[in-house]
Amino acid sequence: MAGVTPINLVEHALLVSIQDDITDTEILELQDRLSTKISENRIDGVILDISALEIVDTFVGRVIAQLAGISRLLAADTYVVGMRPTVAVTLVELGMYLPEIRTALSLTHALAQLRRV
Amino acid sequence: MAGVTPINLVEHALLVSIQDDITDTEILELQDRLSTKISENRIDGVILDISALEIVDTFVGRVIAQLAGISRLLAADTYVVGMRPTVAVTLVELGMYLPEIRTALSLTHALAQLRRV
Repeated sequence: MAGVTPINLVEHALLVSIQDDITDTEILELQDRLSTKISENRIDGVILDISALEIVDTFVGRVIAQLAGISRLLAADTYVVGMRPTVAVTLVELGMYLPEIRTALSLTHALAQLRRV
Repeated sequence: MAGVTPINLVEHALLVSIQDDITDTEILELQDRLSTKISENRIDGVILDISALEIVDTFVGRVIAQLAGISRLLAADTYVVGMRPTVAVTLVELGMYLPEIRTALSLTHALAQLRRV
């Protein structure tokens, strides 16, 4: 079994680093932990770092979409950082345009955009 | 086989001139090249010049939508320039409203809007 997905507080945002080998069970656990943390800490934004992902499939695409959906319902904006070019191409080819999320070039850019909100 | 679709750097944007006779293979190659260029050069915007297109079908419509989707996931805004009136009419008639893209009258207008972001 792989480790627990880390969730770190950075300014008023939660940084979630999605691992390459995330499993179904871990995602359910991550959704619970993330949603609790968002409401407890009155978080403005969630930053999903997906730089560890070299390949995506519909499963991972759905994970990203679901985490973004949960965050939005709890009034937090979601930014995705560290997306590789091939990952973007694959997601779009799979028909997953992820309209709920905003992307940022880096963590610094995402934090700068969250400060502006 | 037709030539390679040119991608040119203009200010902080990439100018892509879509050719009339673009094929499936060329599109895959274009997606790869464009996505790599966006992330390598930290591009703010992508400008799709479609003035060469006199007729569109769902295939070309999907190409435009996919290129815009990839750019957005990589944090670049997409502007379409040079759209002919008949092309706009056809796209809407095909039900392709292309919500992801912004249109600009000309390259000059698109660059002006990108500078403002």
